Amino acid sequence: MNREIVVEKLTAEKFKKFGDVVEPKDNPLLINQNKCERHNDIAFLQVSDCGHVGVSIFSSEKYTLPFQLLLMERHPLGSQCFIPMSGEPFLVIVSADKDGCPDRPFAFITNGKQGVNYKQNIWHSVLTPLSENTLFTVIDRIGPGKNVEEYIFDQPWLVRSLL
Amino acid sequence: MNREIVVEKLTAEKFKKFGDVVEPKDNPLLINQNKCERHNDIAFLQVSDCGHVGVSIFSSEKYTLPFQLLLMERHPLGSQCFIPMSGEPFLVIVSADKDGCPDRPFAFITNGKQGVNYKQNIWHSVLTPLSENTLFTVIDRIGPGKNVEEYIFDQPWLVRSLL
Repeated sequence: MNREIVVEKLTAEKFKKFGDVVEPKDNPLLINQNKCERHNDIAFLQVSDCGHVGVSIFSSEKYTLPFQLLLMERHPLGSQCFIPMSGEPFLVIVSADKDGCPDRPFAFITNGKQGVNYKQNIWHSVLTPLSENTLFTVIDRIGPGKNVEEYIFDQPWLVRSLL
Repeated sequence: MNREIVVEKLTAEKFKKFGDVVEPKDNPLLINQNKCERHNDIAFLQVSDCGHVGVSIFSSEKYTLPFQLLLMERHPLGSQCFIPMSGEPFLVIVSADKDGCPDRPFAFITNGKQGVNYKQNIWHSVLTPLSENTLFTVIDRIGPGKNVEEYIFDQPWLVRSLL
């Protein structure tokens, strides 16, 4: 099997089976004497089993394309939302599930003004920023119980960009 | 009374009675093979009366210093968290309550890597970015009922910077 994954531009349409793209939508509410647009309630947060929705900051090392993808993970007890705080694009890598394992991954690149919200139990890679010193606000379930499952591929996928 | 408010640099210590500063903290968890720091659960989200925690995007006109502050608002049914997505500083203006009205305001400027979470029922100004085209992710209560109270000062406060 071809083990190369070519990065695509992220769109809500391509991403919808994996979760939400957190970006401005059509038809915002106008608030604050019409000085501000409110794009309302655009991520579906999921929290199971006595957890609460929490806000955290992630600060990750930079990744460089092309790179070898070996590990995917998923969170059986809740969604996980990543909001970039620096206006920089980052990589978003997801897979459908196939018999309890991640199927062939898809790799997307954001436009710098997009966050993502992974649905509960969707396979995704760890956070993969493409710039140094980027912070992400993460909105996910915090609580008791095991909320991560990891999968390591037998062979790596090569994630590369033609953009 | 002197109606001038001088902008101060935002710190968690100065802000604690109004809410949380969403920024990296000491002693993060190391995750993802130690490639990522997780600063865990750093905003206290409050949701009353059948609401849910929602994620929205605000896109506001730019404000310029000095400016005249006339209006404050507060949300009796939940906290409200603002995460800048563009790495740009913004103004954060808050007041203690005095007999049901906002007392003399405090004005803070963020360092570009800070968000804020206003506690339930804390008086604050509307969103006041200092740059064009900045997006903010907002995490607040969404649900039925009246969740905003506004107050208009008899005379404006002049918010200015010496920084």
